[in-house]
Amino acid sequence: MTDKPGPRTERVRTRRMHQRGAYDRATIDAILDAQPLAHVGYLLDGAPLVTPTLQWREGDHVYWHGSSASRMLERCDGAEVCVTVTLMDGMVMARSAYNHSVNYRSVMLLGRARIVDEREEKRERLRTMVEHMFPGRWDRLRAMTELEFKATTVLSLPIDEVSAKIRKGPPGDDDADLDIDVWAGVIPLRVEVGTPEPDPRGRQGVPVPDHVRRFRIG
Amino acid sequence: MTDKPGPRTERVRTRRMHQRGAYDRATIDAILDAQPLAHVGYLLDGAPLVTPTLQWREGDHVYWHGSSASRMLERCDGAEVCVTVTLMDGMVMARSAYNHSVNYRSVMLLGRARIVDEREEKRERLRTMVEHMFPGRWDRLRAMTELEFKATTVLSLPIDEVSAKIRKGPPGDDDADLDIDVWAGVIPLRVEVGTPEPDPRGRQGVPVPDHVRRFRIG
Repeated sequence: MTDKPGPRTERVRTRRMHQRGAYDRATIDAILDAQPLAHVGYLLDGAPLVTPTLQWREGDHVYWHGSSASRMLERCDGAEVCVTVTLMDGMVMARSAYNHSVNYRSVMLLGRARIVDEREEKRERLRTMVEHMFPGRWDRLRAMTELEFKATTVLSLPIDEVSAKIRKGPPGDDDADLDIDVWAGVIPLRVEVGTPEPDPRGRQGVPVPDHVRRFRIG
Repeated sequence: MTDKPGPRTERVRTRRMHQRGAYDRATIDAILDAQPLAHVGYLLDGAPLVTPTLQWREGDHVYWHGSSASRMLERCDGAEVCVTVTLMDGMVMARSAYNHSVNYRSVMLLGRARIVDEREEKRERLRTMVEHMFPGRWDRLRAMTELEFKATTVLSLPIDEVSAKIRKGPPGDDDADLDIDVWAGVIPLRVEVGTPEPDPRGRQGVPVPDHVRRFRIG
């Protein structure tokens, strides 16, 4: 978040993995794996655009996908992008407005995105996208047609120029403020996964599989 | 999300409010008011950066704030930015990989951001930021010092060039796929607000006020 951290963008630019930032790869990977929602920043006519999409990580890359007709994906290919993934963990309520904050985990990835154009690799990435979120689902689905395969574009970005930002814990009030008579603490936030709602169309009474029941974000 | 919608960026560029896009201002405002988390896209040395921050809406503007030392805020002043706000409402599970999707509500705002530099207006915006999320809290807090006031920068962006994207409802499977023996439907997602956790430091036993108990996202 922007509420405290000071000159972060310069830090981001210079914090390559081999220089070791505040957080190691395990921490970064854990954040990427906990939150499929990403916001991808890219340029259109010299101005920034930010599009929400789903990302998934495999090894040293993150991937996202979309319609082959999407100009967003076309613009990202070979271009500098920024992929940011954020989990909000709590509202931090202090005794002063200034010390209010947010508990969160966030990863920012920079680099040049590339379309995955090798046929077998693209097919494998589409499979692992589903399997990453819903283990065991891919083989139960109707097979992908050639038309669907062509209509889908997969983008990749190496995990190289990357930083994580994390805030956790109680408010950081000034000592002099601790006796002020206002409630202070943390309001925890998490993504709640509700009861699966079966499609009213089609075959009814299909048991909810484990890969649906076990789905979690966070 | 990027999974279905086709050439969206062009659409975004041309869809000014007076042209009326797919959604009206009430829909756009409702999304902005439901989700404080925003991802702000801006340029640094010609490359896009995307930073998570909290936004709040007042009338025809959204605002965000941060440390006056933040280069993010400095870079945004007078520059073209993109502020995107997203709520994930569900994972849409279809009978084919291709028809999987996400239920979501998202708003994308484009335009030139400005630092709120008029003193009284800036003070009022900082007050309303707190009051917007936690009605009644501002007056209970320790008053903001001049140092804190100066150390904080508020940015504004008019709600002008804006679009919303919404997907809801069950999967859009092909009719021919409806009899496939795989569970299909929606896994609902929402932000769960947990039990407030009092600060272990400072005055204990302060009752949890309504403005904390009633906090919701979504």
